[in-house]
Amino acid sequence: MLLRIDRQSPKPLYKQITDEIKTLIDQGVTGTNMPLPSTRRLAKKIGVNRSTVIRAYEELQALGYLKSKPGSYNKIQKRRKEVKYNPRRKSLIDWEKYSNYRAKEIYEIFLRYSPESPIKTNFKATASNISQLDLYPRLYPMEEFRRCVNHVLHENGSESLEYGTYKGYEPLRRIIAKRLRLHGIAVSEEEILITNGAQQAIDLIIRMLAAPNRKVAVESPTYANILPIMQFNGVKIQGIPMREEGMDLDYLEKTLEKEMLSFIYTIPNFQNPTGITTSHQHRERLLNICLTHKVPLVEDGFEEDMKYYGKVPLPIKSIDDKNVVIYLGTFSKALFPGLRIGWITADKECIERITAIKRFSDLSTGNLAQMVLYEFLKRGYYDLQIRRLHRIFRRRMQIALKTMEECLPRTVSWTRPSGGYTIWVKIHKKLTEIELHEFMSEYSVIVSPGSYYFPRKRSSGYFRISIAKSNEQEIEKGIARLGKALHSLS
Amino acid sequence: MLLRIDRQSPKPLYKQITDEIKTLIDQGVTGTNMPLPSTRRLAKKIGVNRSTVIRAYEELQALGYLKSKPGSYNKIQKRRKEVKYNPRRKSLIDWEKYSNYRAKEIYEIFLRYSPESPIKTNFKATASNISQLDLYPRLYPMEEFRRCVNHVLHENGSESLEYGTYKGYEPLRRIIAKRLRLHGIAVSEEEILITNGAQQAIDLIIRMLAAPNRKVAVESPTYANILPIMQFNGVKIQGIPMREEGMDLDYLEKTLEKEMLSFIYTIPNFQNPTGITTSHQHRERLLNICLTHKVPLVEDGFEEDMKYYGKVPLPIKSIDDKNVVIYLGTFSKALFPGLRIGWITADKECIERITAIKRFSDLSTGNLAQMVLYEFLKRGYYDLQIRRLHRIFRRRMQIALKTMEECLPRTVSWTRPSGGYTIWVKIHKKLTEIELHEFMSEYSVIVSPGSYYFPRKRSSGYFRISIAKSNEQEIEKGIARLGKALHSLS
Repeated sequence: MLLRIDRQSPKPLYKQITDEIKTLIDQGVTGTNMPLPSTRRLAKKIGVNRSTVIRAYEELQALGYLKSKPGSYNKIQKRRKEVKYNPRRKSLIDWEKYSNYRAKEIYEIFLRYSPESPIKTNFKATASNISQLDLYPRLYPMEEFRRCVNHVLHENGSESLEYGTYKGYEPLRRIIAKRLRLHGIAVSEEEILITNGAQQAIDLIIRMLAAPNRKVAVESPTYANILPIMQFNGVKIQGIPMREEGMDLDYLEKTLEKEMLSFIYTIPNFQNPTGITTSHQHRERLLNICLTHKVPLVEDGFEEDMKYYGKVPLPIKSIDDKNVVIYLGTFSKALFPGLRIGWITADKECIERITAIKRFSDLSTGNLAQMVLYEFLKRGYYDLQIRRLHRIFRRRMQIALKTMEECLPRTVSWTRPSGGYTIWVKIHKKLTEIELHEFMSEYSVIVSPGSYYFPRKRSSGYFRISIAKSNEQEIEKGIARLGKALHSLS
Repeated sequence: MLLRIDRQSPKPLYKQITDEIKTLIDQGVTGTNMPLPSTRRLAKKIGVNRSTVIRAYEELQALGYLKSKPGSYNKIQKRRKEVKYNPRRKSLIDWEKYSNYRAKEIYEIFLRYSPESPIKTNFKATASNISQLDLYPRLYPMEEFRRCVNHVLHENGSESLEYGTYKGYEPLRRIIAKRLRLHGIAVSEEEILITNGAQQAIDLIIRMLAAPNRKVAVESPTYANILPIMQFNGVKIQGIPMREEGMDLDYLEKTLEKEMLSFIYTIPNFQNPTGITTSHQHRERLLNICLTHKVPLVEDGFEEDMKYYGKVPLPIKSIDDKNVVIYLGTFSKALFPGLRIGWITADKECIERITAIKRFSDLSTGNLAQMVLYEFLKRGYYDLQIRRLHRIFRRRMQIALKTMEECLPRTVSWTRPSGGYTIWVKIHKKLTEIELHEFMSEYSVIVSPGSYYFPRKRSSGYFRISIAKSNEQEIEKGIARLGKALHSLS
């Protein structure tokens, strides 16, 4: 066996040996079942340390080139043959027919929303995208995250990869509970359930409370992704109109006089999509309505921490001394969307009932991410990140609103949020999502069509813009393009 | 301000400064709104580098001791007051009443299974636990995992914490597809969906295919955690008796002649709980039945890789040229249970329909875990791990079966698995789970009651033991104790 070893090469010696032998085997120079020289002999022959050859053989075994039976570690293994993939193979099953009707419905919605759908492909690669609600990745505190990961892998070891408890990693629940108590919400770790992001939290709550004879009330417009999962879970949706000061509470009261609701869903801070924050009075009245009618209130605090203009009213959960509020939180909006960690806090029995559903739907949330997040919170990195984002987004929101004043026509109106990322724009013409995208694609600016946010609407005179994933220049440019588009519309 | 700094201390200087100032603030020596000395002044005064003081002030800010408004970074912040938690606060909502009946049912099952339930607390801390199916944590390849995490955080950076694509990280799907093709399953990455473990995969499939007028057929006994989630999703369960050679196919055919099924669920290798592996002939006939009746077959390959006694028949999916098989895989059984990564492979349209449900139920699976797993597979670490486990568990299973021969009475019989972790034991007396646990607690050995694994059974003449989380000594000791218990039973 002839191996070419280059001592000047930056490639490690063991790697050179591995690659040389791989090539010999792949080219058929050495055949199946042939033994390689013993590590001692080969080491001597090419003049390297024996441990270098051992490492190379281990690598070859890991890659499947050598046998793994005792006594034949040196022997070349027959390479497994890959079967060929046939993309034209048809299924005997008609999946449309086998799916239940809710699964059919959600699939159609999925295709409508799909990134590969024709709607979005009209845009040039250089289009300004001011539609996305996930945070600008350069603002992720990567270095702090790395430190926490290393700490956890070093300190917690294999525990970080074992099954976690159903409710979630206890120290994480404890530190979240403490944070909540500092924000006026009087809960303990027993009343917290960790979920795979806030979306799973919503799904679980619906799966517990949905009932065929009861509707769920949501603000109209509301968070777009909640509507399909409600429909999928067999929930009838009752939209409550959104006014300048928040959900129309007279309308809600009239609804409750007519029928029972499974729950009411609200986003009191920087509402998605409108950006509206409700007053303390509005929160008190909403809670009182829930108390009067004994109906659970789901409060989505998804951007609670993004109050960069200073004080906003305390969460409704903080004045809820009758435990009717189910509060949702997430780390996806100010930290890392892809970490997939959210949580629910509510009455202990309610949390345990939701935990039962989670336990059988995915066993538990990954321990590692929870442990890293705990470390991150404990070290104060999260608070530092929040302060940093406050400085940055206070400025970005100012720039966005100023540029809108300058560039958008008088016929258009929009909200002026006191935090968060989204601004809601009203135009004087109703458009479907396809019409809006087609129109905007001429001006190379992507916004989020209003129809996504209303229950049962295919066209609307609104759209949402978001400053979450754009820097100052991108915001200015996107809004300038938007201005050109809207001027041509009027 | 007097700070005690000890230059001989192993504690870093910046940390000493931080802690000293914290103490002064906590003790009220320096009050709210008071400014700390400028970093320059303090550095000069105590004779340290200015950067040391800056780091200390940053730390104090992160911990909430200093204000975060521009121009007042040195000023002491009023400490937020924590609200007090009142554990006796009652909820106005009757959660039992508000839950739908399926949520009520699953909560009752959860309480039955709960680790805090009275059933298990009877055992002494020194009891032998041969009931658990998760891998012995000392066998996790932690060092290799760490290397992969570091690589991903370094190479992929913030991408690892962004939202992932709905189907999962593409390189991971590609490498899984390649592995599957090497095992005879002809699929591409387009036909793979990554899930939060195999449990989520099962939940998603049920949510798509469950229909009010159709049952689902499962082996009886079968995987315990699948039964509650089927019930919860409104599925009626049809148990098909498990024989020595696998699911009773005559019984299955008769069932299919009488009624339509949503799907058939099977575990052909090292079935949980029985440990039975079906023959190639059995697999062919089962597939043919599905083709004849055009019914989807869900093949759970959860321990596919644990064939440590050598060859087992190829997966049913490998002979499925009509795309009726939905195949489930997981990395929880041979690698890390807590990583929560599983996958589904099936006909492309089927996968896309399941993806639609996943997209709205939790948006996506965490990118970081997927990227690390990809790196782990690419480097051949997974194959090394499998070979290592094969050596270890071949031996452990031999010891388990040998000890059973020696210690268990003649009146008892059990399966002799050709891989995997579980052995199924038949006794001559029917016991409920509580009766079995109470009896076994006297002999300090924990096994898994058979009634968990049968649809609608509260007592059974079986139990499952598992060698996954015990070493050789623990297996011997546990089975010896089991022998004593069973001798006293007969």
